[in-house]
Amino acid sequence: MKLGILGGGQLGRMLLQAAGNYTLETFVLENDTTCPAAHLCHHFTLGDIRDFDTVYAFGKQVDVLTIEIENINIDALFQLQKEGVKVIPSPEAIAIIKDKGIQKQFYADHHIPTAPFVLTDNKTAIEANVDFLPAANKLRTGGYDGKGVELLFGANDLPRAFVEPSLLEKMVDIKKEIAVLVGVGIDGATVVYEPTEMVFDPKLNLVDYLIAPADITSEQIKTAETIALHAVKALQSPGLFAVELFLSANDEIVVNEIAPRAHNSGHQTIEGNLISQYDMQLRIFQELPLGLPTNRGFSAMYNLIGEAGSQGHTIYQGLDKALAMEGVFVHQYGKSTTKPGRKMGHVTIVENDKASLLEKLSMVKRQIHVIGDKTIAL
Amino acid sequence: MKLGILGGGQLGRMLLQAAGNYTLETFVLENDTTCPAAHLCHHFTLGDIRDFDTVYAFGKQVDVLTIEIENINIDALFQLQKEGVKVIPSPEAIAIIKDKGIQKQFYADHHIPTAPFVLTDNKTAIEANVDFLPAANKLRTGGYDGKGVELLFGANDLPRAFVEPSLLEKMVDIKKEIAVLVGVGIDGATVVYEPTEMVFDPKLNLVDYLIAPADITSEQIKTAETIALHAVKALQSPGLFAVELFLSANDEIVVNEIAPRAHNSGHQTIEGNLISQYDMQLRIFQELPLGLPTNRGFSAMYNLIGEAGSQGHTIYQGLDKALAMEGVFVHQYGKSTTKPGRKMGHVTIVENDKASLLEKLSMVKRQIHVIGDKTIAL
Repeated sequence: MKLGILGGGQLGRMLLQAAGNYTLETFVLENDTTCPAAHLCHHFTLGDIRDFDTVYAFGKQVDVLTIEIENINIDALFQLQKEGVKVIPSPEAIAIIKDKGIQKQFYADHHIPTAPFVLTDNKTAIEANVDFLPAANKLRTGGYDGKGVELLFGANDLPRAFVEPSLLEKMVDIKKEIAVLVGVGIDGATVVYEPTEMVFDPKLNLVDYLIAPADITSEQIKTAETIALHAVKALQSPGLFAVELFLSANDEIVVNEIAPRAHNSGHQTIEGNLISQYDMQLRIFQELPLGLPTNRGFSAMYNLIGEAGSQGHTIYQGLDKALAMEGVFVHQYGKSTTKPGRKMGHVTIVENDKASLLEKLSMVKRQIHVIGDKTIAL
Repeated sequence: MKLGILGGGQLGRMLLQAAGNYTLETFVLENDTTCPAAHLCHHFTLGDIRDFDTVYAFGKQVDVLTIEIENINIDALFQLQKEGVKVIPSPEAIAIIKDKGIQKQFYADHHIPTAPFVLTDNKTAIEANVDFLPAANKLRTGGYDGKGVELLFGANDLPRAFVEPSLLEKMVDIKKEIAVLVGVGIDGATVVYEPTEMVFDPKLNLVDYLIAPADITSEQIKTAETIALHAVKALQSPGLFAVELFLSANDEIVVNEIAPRAHNSGHQTIEGNLISQYDMQLRIFQELPLGLPTNRGFSAMYNLIGEAGSQGHTIYQGLDKALAMEGVFVHQYGKSTTKPGRKMGHVTIVENDKASLLEKLSMVKRQIHVIGDKTIAL
């Protein structure tokens, strides 16, 4: 089978590592020959994933076409699907998800619990809704990795509001952030991973670390899994989806957003589960059984982010200490240069008891630092 | 770091899958552009691993040079080592191992227990040693995957004896075959994996399946690990080594042979241990800590061998059934054509209890068949 991937970042890299377990001919499209996934495929194409002709020509070569980022030319995906290429996830699902306004409206239309929201075409519309604050102001398209989100607590924050089409989402008093991976086969079969718990770095608005399984009640697990499965089923698309949920202070569970692909919140499944999120994608693409992705004990995932104060050639400090500990795995993303806030890798820790897991996590966080070889102003 | 691999088979493929976790620039030399590892490296060179000039030129580009098969040009490795390339394992260790005569003499010289043997330059020398039979007659060089070994029980079998330089090894009354992986860092640090138990297919003389950990007494585990570590230390080389041992009917443990690289008997470490044999190699190459490769419960590995009666384009039958079971992993080697006896992949099974492991193993053996699209005479 010929598998095409739009985007050559770390998600593509890890997918291609897993793809080596199967008989797949792999294709990657990305506008950078040194991107993390470029050297792990059979055929690399240099080109812009946002350009119709480029994506169309790339997609015509393959049997299954997938994405590792939503910011792709979706018209080309619709055309390719019409011409018989299996696009997974479906262009329809990507279209719903890549515009956060349409995504929110989709939740409302399908009775999927989510925080109240107002769609805003411009800054004037936001100003007219000052009574709706405090709210998260989210760009409808183009946001990623914490970019494209501003927290507006009141009128004083309006200068930071977006001028582009965006939405205001009522701020949830968050007790925990939870993620649930859901796999959907081409035949409609589904599989749900046990919920994980994400802890965010408030400065970078990126997942700082993650614990699996989430420390929530069995009732909450059931509710989170039910909501996630319902939301993903409503998309009516095969694929692997990451559903991010909020557990609010008053114990309500609402959908934050869905990623129609492998996700940062699922990296720990490589070592922490019997089926990784990448292997699950490959099973779906090949119409193999989805299987049982049972957790293998406790696991934690810690993002390695380029630190403030330096950039340039990437240096990973402290690996010698971290990798001496039992059950600690590193994933370097192969990005030759770092800058503050850039995702440069992650560490997964597996353990049989949670206390040891948290202890090792805290050591890893102290030990590993990703810096560049050039000092810059803080 | 620039890592070169001589050989592009399945061992290279799995090594390169693991290498995606690090910042490595990878190079592969093989005489087949469609070999299992060709598409998973940064730089593929088409060429003969047995040719001095080819290996020398290839090796001059890299910092660390390794092998995935012993049948390489060793003179080039000695020259490259002299010129500062880190060759892991050392050319000296490869030279000892690639000639089974030198290897056996090495065991004798270093008081490493091994079955009695006689070196034989030709058939006449074998005939002169008919009293030494029953013995395994092994080609000194060039044997692999069960080829290059003839079992001679008595004078009647002499027509099957090798005319080339070979050796006669006293046949051991084998109770079990055991394998122990040993990692040696550049700094001399060592790590020993728990012994595994190999069950051979007598017809193909290939590992049929393997169980980890081996079902032997704690005393035998200790002895096997001690012998394996002693034998590998005597080679005085960094690298990952697979030590194959016999447990005899009278409970003696002797070394059968050593592979100076990742080995079929260690495939199950990918899912079955906290550090796979491939990750261990990468830790050694990069002078990272060797860590603790603890077993994650029980695991089994079953080789997928091209079946008798067909050849041609590879077809994997029964994956749909096998992969529906919890804890079953497949590794297809990406060989476009199969033939009877060819190693086409393997299945790993992980389980918390041994009875379930053996039950799943027996189901997998019934379910999966690797055949070609052309029928041939049995």
